[in-house]
Amino acid sequence: MTRRKKIYEGKAKILYEGPEPGTLIQYFKDDATAFNGEKKAQLEGKGVINNRISEYVMTRLNSIGVQNHFIRRLNLREQLIKEVEIIPLEVVVRNIAAGSIATRLGLTEGQPLPRSIIEFYYKEDKLNDPMVSEEHITAFNWAATQEIDDMMAMALRVNDYLSGLFSGVGITLVDFKIEFGRIYEGDFSRIILADEISPDSCRLWDAATNEKLDKDRFRRDLGNVIESYTEVARRLGIMKEMPTVIQGGVH
Amino acid sequence: MTRRKKIYEGKAKILYEGPEPGTLIQYFKDDATAFNGEKKAQLEGKGVINNRISEYVMTRLNSIGVQNHFIRRLNLREQLIKEVEIIPLEVVVRNIAAGSIATRLGLTEGQPLPRSIIEFYYKEDKLNDPMVSEEHITAFNWAATQEIDDMMAMALRVNDYLSGLFSGVGITLVDFKIEFGRIYEGDFSRIILADEISPDSCRLWDAATNEKLDKDRFRRDLGNVIESYTEVARRLGIMKEMPTVIQGGVH
Repeated sequence: MTRRKKIYEGKAKILYEGPEPGTLIQYFKDDATAFNGEKKAQLEGKGVINNRISEYVMTRLNSIGVQNHFIRRLNLREQLIKEVEIIPLEVVVRNIAAGSIATRLGLTEGQPLPRSIIEFYYKEDKLNDPMVSEEHITAFNWAATQEIDDMMAMALRVNDYLSGLFSGVGITLVDFKIEFGRIYEGDFSRIILADEISPDSCRLWDAATNEKLDKDRFRRDLGNVIESYTEVARRLGIMKEMPTVIQGGVH
Repeated sequence: MTRRKKIYEGKAKILYEGPEPGTLIQYFKDDATAFNGEKKAQLEGKGVINNRISEYVMTRLNSIGVQNHFIRRLNLREQLIKEVEIIPLEVVVRNIAAGSIATRLGLTEGQPLPRSIIEFYYKEDKLNDPMVSEEHITAFNWAATQEIDDMMAMALRVNDYLSGLFSGVGITLVDFKIEFGRIYEGDFSRIILADEISPDSCRLWDAATNEKLDKDRFRRDLGNVIESYTEVARRLGIMKEMPTVIQGGVH
């Protein structure tokens, strides 16, 4: 591959200039980080699995009209995506109490929430991604009111679709984090789904045993991280295309 | 005074049964607490000043149509109020960055916010009053969407009125915390302003010097707490009724 211009390097992904204007190449690294980068590791094959799972999910979301940045997968670790102006918010949808909401509101992990709850976090590592409300978002112009409404509506559609998709393969969708970006068309802009959807960005529990099949295995030192990610891919039916080294990890 | 039934004792106030149904007596203590009760002190005369300032402000808010629980002051430390079903939220309105928003969003204390920002905190000492959004409030049924809208509209009116009131006496209203309660009329309920408005619940800076005239003097060990509270009362023109012991504290 020819030398490409790196546009941005995050904790788990790198963005390179794409082959034509308005496109980027999203490269999935094996780097795992948690607690705002305090905990780090290399998990061999993670990038390959997440590239594949995110392709699978984004393709299906596109097909139901949840527009997103995914164009096509290029190779094991890379996908071609639309270039967007990222909105500096992490949008979290929660169905069951786990992680920070359990701590913040004194809930028991595993307790179903009264209804799905959407949260916004301001993407700023220096501040440890603080939770914010619509008031902060509009006051600081991170997004307009209409954009917030659009993100919330799309987040709920993603939640419905993913809840169904995972439920069908024996997995409970506890919560997930998504990001959005603006795409410009002449003088107008609209919001599309961006970033990735993978076991790095979702809490996924085996529906029968509540065993965690997601990044909490890394955060909480539960072991078998890659094996669990691969199990998610296998259940989604994309295992057959996984490289042997990763297939070998599944028991 | 006859023996009364104590309904509730908080960190700075006590509520007693009132003389007739639907009323309570709100007693202002001299206790000062900060950091969720970790820091404590007795500040002689604080309850007297806050009773008086809150009376002054609530009376005026009633007169402009911001309905609230205040009926009349009974004596130095007590006021008669309407009994409400307290909504378990602290509603904070901020005009200038100070306190937790400065820390959370990396702002400089004293930096004007792009516009007034309303925040909600869930009143739960055990959880250290976590910030919450409309999503949490409605999901957990702490308040209905219409009630949130009503609280936000009233909070902005209180902000406008208090900004003007304090500005007129050379004080900058940096931020303040208010609470609301439900009052029932037949099958219906509506939201009215409750609790207190005083230098315990506002950040008030001298407009000329930015000297703090509020509870931050206690939180940050700046000294002259009572003197500053008394100065606020004096500027509002209610000093003449203050007991001598407190007047004596002003220099």
